[in-house]
Amino acid sequence: MSSIWKNNLTLSIFGESHGRAIGMTIDGIPAGEEIDSKILRTFLKRRVPGRFPWTTSRTEADIPEFLSGLKAGKTTGSPITAIIRNQNSRSSDYDDIKDIPRPGHADYSAHVKYGGNADMSGGGHFSGRLTAALCVAGGVCLQILKRRGVTIGAHIASIGNVSGHPFDMLKIDAATLEVVSGLDFPVIDSEAKADMVAEIDRARQDKDSLGGIIECAAVGLPAGLGEHIFGGMENRIASLIFGIPAVTSLEFGIGFNCAEMRGSEYNDPFYFDGDIVKTKTNHHGGILGGMTTGMPLIFRASIKPTPSIARAQESVNLRTGESVNLEIMGRHDPCIVPRAVPSIEAVAAIALLDAWA
Amino acid sequence: MSSIWKNNLTLSIFGESHGRAIGMTIDGIPAGEEIDSKILRTFLKRRVPGRFPWTTSRTEADIPEFLSGLKAGKTTGSPITAIIRNQNSRSSDYDDIKDIPRPGHADYSAHVKYGGNADMSGGGHFSGRLTAALCVAGGVCLQILKRRGVTIGAHIASIGNVSGHPFDMLKIDAATLEVVSGLDFPVIDSEAKADMVAEIDRARQDKDSLGGIIECAAVGLPAGLGEHIFGGMENRIASLIFGIPAVTSLEFGIGFNCAEMRGSEYNDPFYFDGDIVKTKTNHHGGILGGMTTGMPLIFRASIKPTPSIARAQESVNLRTGESVNLEIMGRHDPCIVPRAVPSIEAVAAIALLDAWA
Amino acid sequence: MSSIWKNNLTLSIFGESHGRAIGMTIDGIPAGEEIDSKILRTFLKRRVPGRFPWTTSRTEADIPEFLSGLKAGKTTGSPITAIIRNQNSRSSDYDDIKDIPRPGHADYSAHVKYGGNADMSGGGHFSGRLTAALCVAGGVCLQILKRRGVTIGAHIASIGNVSGHPFDMLKIDAATLEVVSGLDFPVIDSEAKADMVAEIDRARQDKDSLGGIIECAAVGLPAGLGEHIFGGMENRIASLIFGIPAVTSLEFGIGFNCAEMRGSEYNDPFYFDGDIVKTKTNHHGGILGGMTTGMPLIFRASIKPTPSIARAQESVNLRTGESVNLEIMGRHDPCIVPRAVPSIEAVAAIALLDAWA
Amino acid sequence: MSSIWKNNLTLSIFGESHGRAIGMTIDGIPAGEEIDSKILRTFLKRRVPGRFPWTTSRTEADIPEFLSGLKAGKTTGSPITAIIRNQNSRSSDYDDIKDIPRPGHADYSAHVKYGGNADMSGGGHFSGRLTAALCVAGGVCLQILKRRGVTIGAHIASIGNVSGHPFDMLKIDAATLEVVSGLDFPVIDSEAKADMVAEIDRARQDKDSLGGIIECAAVGLPAGLGEHIFGGMENRIASLIFGIPAVTSLEFGIGFNCAEMRGSEYNDPFYFDGDIVKTKTNHHGGILGGMTTGMPLIFRASIKPTPSIARAQESVNLRTGESVNLEIMGRHDPCIVPRAVPSIEAVAAIALLDAWA
Repeated sequence: MSSIWKNNLTLSIFGESHGRAIGMTIDGIPAGEEIDSKILRTFLKRRVPGRFPWTTSRTEADIPEFLSGLKAGKTTGSPITAIIRNQNSRSSDYDDIKDIPRPGHADYSAHVKYGGNADMSGGGHFSGRLTAALCVAGGVCLQILKRRGVTIGAHIASIGNVSGHPFDMLKIDAATLEVVSGLDFPVIDSEAKADMVAEIDRARQDKDSLGGIIECAAVGLPAGLGEHIFGGMENRIASLIFGIPAVTSLEFGIGFNCAEMRGSEYNDPFYFDGDIVKTKTNHHGGILGGMTTGMPLIFRASIKPTPSIARAQESVNLRTGESVNLEIMGRHDPCIVPRAVPSIEAVAAIALLDAWA
Repeated sequence: MSSIWKNNLTLSIFGESHGRAIGMTIDGIPAGEEIDSKILRTFLKRRVPGRFPWTTSRTEADIPEFLSGLKAGKTTGSPITAIIRNQNSRSSDYDDIKDIPRPGHADYSAHVKYGGNADMSGGGHFSGRLTAALCVAGGVCLQILKRRGVTIGAHIASIGNVSGHPFDMLKIDAATLEVVSGLDFPVIDSEAKADMVAEIDRARQDKDSLGGIIECAAVGLPAGLGEHIFGGMENRIASLIFGIPAVTSLEFGIGFNCAEMRGSEYNDPFYFDGDIVKTKTNHHGGILGGMTTGMPLIFRASIKPTPSIARAQESVNLRTGESVNLEIMGRHDPCIVPRAVPSIEAVAAIALLDAWA
Repeated sequence: MSSIWKNNLTLSIFGESHGRAIGMTIDGIPAGEEIDSKILRTFLKRRVPGRFPWTTSRTEADIPEFLSGLKAGKTTGSPITAIIRNQNSRSSDYDDIKDIPRPGHADYSAHVKYGGNADMSGGGHFSGRLTAALCVAGGVCLQILKRRGVTIGAHIASIGNVSGHPFDMLKIDAATLEVVSGLDFPVIDSEAKADMVAEIDRARQDKDSLGGIIECAAVGLPAGLGEHIFGGMENRIASLIFGIPAVTSLEFGIGFNCAEMRGSEYNDPFYFDGDIVKTKTNHHGGILGGMTTGMPLIFRASIKPTPSIARAQESVNLRTGESVNLEIMGRHDPCIVPRAVPSIEAVAAIALLDAWA
Repeated sequence: MSSIWKNNLTLSIFGESHGRAIGMTIDGIPAGEEIDSKILRTFLKRRVPGRFPWTTSRTEADIPEFLSGLKAGKTTGSPITAIIRNQNSRSSDYDDIKDIPRPGHADYSAHVKYGGNADMSGGGHFSGRLTAALCVAGGVCLQILKRRGVTIGAHIASIGNVSGHPFDMLKIDAATLEVVSGLDFPVIDSEAKADMVAEIDRARQDKDSLGGIIECAAVGLPAGLGEHIFGGMENRIASLIFGIPAVTSLEFGIGFNCAEMRGSEYNDPFYFDGDIVKTKTNHHGGILGGMTTGMPLIFRASIKPTPSIARAQESVNLRTGESVNLEIMGRHDPCIVPRAVPSIEAVAAIALLDAWA
């Protein structure tokens, strides 16, 4: 386990934030699948910085160059590699603070592990920028799943103290998912949107940052995807999702709330809808025994507040052994939650296609 | 990904609930490690059914027989295999309902995936009984970690609507973990214990079941364990923990609560405690950038209510296409949360030793 | 990579020669496959010691006990685990020489790697006895492949200085393979057989040992099995076959002889046999670009002379630092080549089913 | 298993011969290792086409661009990715024959597996050109091993019917390996060189091609590298080496010749050379029980004759169902053996560093 995730599909993520390029290789994608580059770019644009007043001012075109595995818009069956050049890196932002671990960042643990060798400028290989590569892989998988009848969409369930209403776990459908995931600011509860934006703006003015919760659904799934014990859909999603730097939690279906329910309440009764077996409620979130049931697959993940903030923070100088006050200059986003939404969808798509090889 | 988890360590779990035996093979354990069989048995006894008035009446001695990898109480460096015979299986319990998927169980999705071939009696390979094998592996890892100065302990944070106070994420220490994990009913909040027991008893009387939340901590860790992106400590723990049948959620450190915090509040300030870098708070739960920081590693997982309940539940007959009312006879536990505690510790131990190879 | 081989199928081999049991777990086998235990035992009997005057006098029934993954003679889709108890181990044979590495054995390199911790009695985990577990896995795969129309058979191409004629790489067929692999002493060249047996007997009388070459073929294969670069059929077979302790070489098709051929001679011309594309010769041995072509798949492996011989050999005492003369007492087989034949077939079967998941 | 080899190190090879670029990602390389780009380029130049009168006239500068994992000439601990642009591709060479599988090529089996989707122009992902990426990975590993005292070198043991004398398996040393691997035409038997060159020239004039045998040695190794059963040094080398398109065979130490030796002859006696345990002969080729013994590690691989030849060959038209005579135009090399030497060294280096993580 490391930057290469290997299962039926293999996904390799490479690059450093301020290096020459980031990129990904995904192996195991069937041959002959059409990948529409326009749809892919639209998907990738959803995570690009610079779209909102509050997002980082660093702008990267972030258009992937496909080096292999595609010919005339179709997969060839060999590994697909795409790279994205880093055009706008300013390593000097980092040089001044390289001995001072930023709170909430990987700096200190990476210092212990790699000594001075890791390229930590801009977060290096630990940067959220690497999720651009994850989204390229996910965007490819999304298109393949779409042709198999699966729609995946995620939205913002909460930002800071503002929550919108969640997906209807039983009735969520493809049309709704397409609409919400197509929004600039993807929230199913349109009334909560303005409050969320205002909440972000307040944090920005306070030189502070915010986290939030993203909820993701996949509909149109056949039953029976996923495998035993460590091969369950939850394990696949989990082993990918914690590769997104800011994710701290993950819950499936009713999630942590199951703890307060009795079995008679939690268990979802089965019934026949014509020939199809469905459940009357969907607390299980579309997965039983690690395998899909055909009901909507639902999960939620929390995104921690952006660790880089302009406010003074306490830290230490690892070289001198002194306590220091750190003000992080440079570009940072007071809330990456909206931009993290496509990464969550990407994880769902990769995990599902992996289980459907 | 399936019943074999492969990383630095490889863990293979095998067996069906009503088959001849269950067991595990763990490969990659260093040679020359002493494994005290008495300590291991004490650990395993914590998940054995039949210890409490409310637990299932099925009693299995559940003493593992080590077939390989140990000689005179020491690891030999070759794969360690242990098996546990199933002595008390009553498959007939299942025969009557084999066409009727039990709500909350793997029955329906397994039916779609495996047709009639899966041995689903007693839950088959999806049974919680397989966690006995997980605990054997974990128990081996725990002893090795102990000698390296690491203490791992988990306790019940809540059962149904009764919560106790959680671990102090900053100050939790080895002594406290040893005490709480040694308890028959492991709750750090001794006052909450009686309420939890009463809550379980109420559910039992109502022929119903309960879930809960388990919190786990590891202390004494060096900084720098864990790897990039998909190799983070969270990914390792997550990819194992969802192999425990009843787990529906997982959060690290402050977890989902991070969504309501601002960066200035969430970020844990660094300071020097003598020569050692520590953080003044521990919202990050001991992991930054996927790597340990040396602070206590903390995570919580929810356990869903036992799906088997004696109450009538709605289901379908997959053969006849009729709706049916299902009352599950046989032995079942109204709340497996106390018995799941060592499984959670096992996961932490396997993941940590894996990252420390 | 270690005692667990993980690909589409995962195969875990465990046990030590003089431990309690050896065994294997194979995961990824489809559900619903019939496994005939009688056919399996017949297959396993082919590698059992004690069948010939010259083989080791250690007799183990070597009948596997299936612990999981089979129900009423059919695979359940969950991992298949089988164990074979060690009933006839005499560790004392080894105690006297534990500081004296036996030439040709793993003793010295294992001593460096594991110190005194490895259980090297009888060869421990490095023993050829572990191939019994490999054969259980292979025997399961063979039956599944058979139902898909594939026949695999191997025979002895040479022993010591006696060679028989090899398979006709172009015309080898299922009937021939079944006959030869069913023989007590599997040699397609029946005239060479007596010479081979005499050659072994001479070595035995001289307290010496012999190696040989085994040739294996698989027919009835579809084209297109195998994958890119490291996923080729050769890579799969190779990564398994060198798990057989005595194998020192491997060649596909015409093998090393290709070095002396020109392209115009080596290249196999394509032609249509009805609708089917075939080649007029089969120097490529049924694999091009790592993928099967539908022509007979052919490979050969050499088996080194049994390292344990009763003759005095020079070695060292690792404890005292002295030179010593070593005479290895106990039971050993002057030529394991006949008994190694089913192991080679097992490897072919596992590799092919793995590529055909 | 596919184009991504995953073990302690993970190596991903991507690209198609006539696509935009080929490349590799290697993950698991320790942080802080110096990689001298000049030494790397010198190594890579050894496989570049166009150096000899007889090699293909396609000239690619083949200088890798490192996108990640290196900073200021040192490894950062994150995945190392390098790409090589394809500058000189002429896909039109292939268009005329895309329905006609070239004898000895992957065309037919790829046609069955991928339909028309694989990009087979220039051999596509199956092209020997991909070994440039393998050599980048190997070149990195070679430098790291060198600093640990290990020298790896390979040479041509035979081409067509011309053999030179092989390495002295017992006495081969670092100095000899450095000299021979530095030669333009790496043959340890300088007298055989002229004959080999003449042999190639004859084949070229006949519009034909030649194969050969490459021998590789690694010296300066510690004992104890490699692991059990499937993790042996042979398994690692084998699972990589058959990723080189033209390799058909592999033997370790005395290899196939072991079949004609008796145990008393084959077994290498141990002795003390000062404090160090050595063997008096080296038939085992430096590996016992899958682990290095500290003696020179020796293996040989055969390279088949270049399949593309200008001579007319029989084939079929897969679209029309007709028999055809095929003359392959374009650039091809009558003998790739000299250019394959660094690929063999690369494999040895990757396998050894993998076992030494």
